[in-house]
Amino acid sequence: MKATIMYGAGDVRVETVPDPIISEPTDAIVRVVRACVCGSDLHPYHSMPASEKGTPMGHELIGVVEEIGSAVTTLQRGDFVVAPFAYQDNTCAICRDGFQTSCPHGGFYGTPEVGGLQAEFARIPQADGSLVVVPGVDESSDLLPSLLSLSDVYLTGHHAAHMGRVSAGTTVTVIGDGAVGLSAVLASRRLGAERIILMGRHTARTDLGREFGATDVVAERGDEGIAAVLELTGGEGSHVVLEAVGHLPAYEQSYGIVRPGGVISRVGVPQYEEAPVGFGSLFGKNVTLTGGPAPVRAYLEAAIREVLDGEIDPGRVFDRTVGLDDIPAAYAAMDAREALKVMVAF
Amino acid sequence: MKATIMYGAGDVRVETVPDPIISEPTDAIVRVVRACVCGSDLHPYHSMPASEKGTPMGHELIGVVEEIGSAVTTLQRGDFVVAPFAYQDNTCAICRDGFQTSCPHGGFYGTPEVGGLQAEFARIPQADGSLVVVPGVDESSDLLPSLLSLSDVYLTGHHAAHMGRVSAGTTVTVIGDGAVGLSAVLASRRLGAERIILMGRHTARTDLGREFGATDVVAERGDEGIAAVLELTGGEGSHVVLEAVGHLPAYEQSYGIVRPGGVISRVGVPQYEEAPVGFGSLFGKNVTLTGGPAPVRAYLEAAIREVLDGEIDPGRVFDRTVGLDDIPAAYAAMDAREALKVMVAF
Repeated sequence: MKATIMYGAGDVRVETVPDPIISEPTDAIVRVVRACVCGSDLHPYHSMPASEKGTPMGHELIGVVEEIGSAVTTLQRGDFVVAPFAYQDNTCAICRDGFQTSCPHGGFYGTPEVGGLQAEFARIPQADGSLVVVPGVDESSDLLPSLLSLSDVYLTGHHAAHMGRVSAGTTVTVIGDGAVGLSAVLASRRLGAERIILMGRHTARTDLGREFGATDVVAERGDEGIAAVLELTGGEGSHVVLEAVGHLPAYEQSYGIVRPGGVISRVGVPQYEEAPVGFGSLFGKNVTLTGGPAPVRAYLEAAIREVLDGEIDPGRVFDRTVGLDDIPAAYAAMDAREALKVMVAF
Repeated sequence: MKATIMYGAGDVRVETVPDPIISEPTDAIVRVVRACVCGSDLHPYHSMPASEKGTPMGHELIGVVEEIGSAVTTLQRGDFVVAPFAYQDNTCAICRDGFQTSCPHGGFYGTPEVGGLQAEFARIPQADGSLVVVPGVDESSDLLPSLLSLSDVYLTGHHAAHMGRVSAGTTVTVIGDGAVGLSAVLASRRLGAERIILMGRHTARTDLGREFGATDVVAERGDEGIAAVLELTGGEGSHVVLEAVGHLPAYEQSYGIVRPGGVISRVGVPQYEEAPVGFGSLFGKNVTLTGGPAPVRAYLEAAIREVLDGEIDPGRVFDRTVGLDDIPAAYAAMDAREALKVMVAF
């Protein structure tokens, strides 16, 4: 089959590799119908050291179950499924807490053993815990983009809002007008936020943000951006800040605009390890810092229902579709901000 | 009057200074009945640069209202009161949120204008918002230590537990066997924690911790301490970690023992500004970091009622009482860990 391998920064190739096989009785093999490129794929696209071996890429898919291991009980060949971007057993104590991305029997795609999902076929470990069947949908559905968005991007935005305790009456500020940031806007609206301030400077994106529910857009960054949000909030700051970027300046912006006692919820994968947390940043004003890799599995059934019922249309973040051979160009287009998020059709 | 002034690290003096006066119509003057030395006073005791001017010390008191400004409406001369360690109007939007330590019209004691509370008399700004009357109590009450503890230490421990969302069924680990840590144990028990692991190595203190509700004591620190807590929690870690120290190693210990999706709540004033918050510490396992200066005022009426009703006895953290002239020795005794927390009687 064909699969996507990154050999170093800027070096993405589509190559022929062996088809995945059932390695464990709990595995399933899925034929990929749609995959996509994630904002987080751009981090190694900038920084991965060159290697001869390469790393299999991709962690989002919708597809059709082709084969199941002998221990799989909830799936059958032909089922149309969404795969969360991480796999998990979904039965252990940590999964039952709703933090499936920390499942001790789970893991992430993109290793030599498990492979990536920007490929024609995918091996899904812990298939019973990881794949969720979408009833009544096939490859011709108009809902494919929105269903694909549930694999990661929309439910990552939802996780940000959920961990930020967004509710009716909340003022939310979303930092970042990428696909996750826009998803966080949509999720905040669904959770009843009274006011949603979107910080971003790409008009095409912030326009979609307004359609998703943003009530204000702030194009300034840094100190100017902080001043603008404080002015919009009567000097008090935002109850909740959803940080959907992952770079340190966005974090610093977050504690500048959060209200005393408020919450900063991060879902942009931090490209830093150390950051201010002391009296002058978080502690002095009792700010709560939360967030992490979204336990998509925890939210998936409810979100599938919302998509099937037409209540949300998170697939609008996809503004380009390519075939598998054009994945390298998809990375380049997202990196150049020519495309917001690229879907791959097989 | 006599008041306590710190002139540099290790240099605490009791001196005669002018009596405080009503400067604003919202002020009150309180005659101090009991004050005390705080663990946070030990930070400048270690690090304050020497100065000729000095800094007035103390931020905890119970006492009797001597005089009120013309705008004060809820107090009268002779009222027996508790003063939270910060002053606030208790009417603004931030105070109504329950984060009075960030009141834009409030502040902290120990400035040249406001003075400190380790003194015979104290000026209390925003007196209506800051002083809470204790009905039916006078200077002869056996409850004075517990009432004094509500000025800071017990309600700081309570704030840690409250922000950590301690509730029935929670496993809590408290780092630090100082007076705040022991208070956090007692508050966690009040909030219904199922299991309370106290990390500390001073047996006299951890024994009081057990009486306050600790179910387990871990004397090890660092990696050994982390391993011990993980073993006690079946490898999963603690739902909530209450960090009552303020030094970086305690913070690092916190993210080592917190369960995925759990909460670290800090009330030890951080003696650092930068700390790990990225994928390898907080983000990767969806840890929430919270806490800050306790908005004691938010919790004060309920806690006074609990003390008057005999439901809690947080004053047991005081293990020594001195007169005003012996305050320098009180600092030294707490610094040498000869005393847990020293009360000052006037």
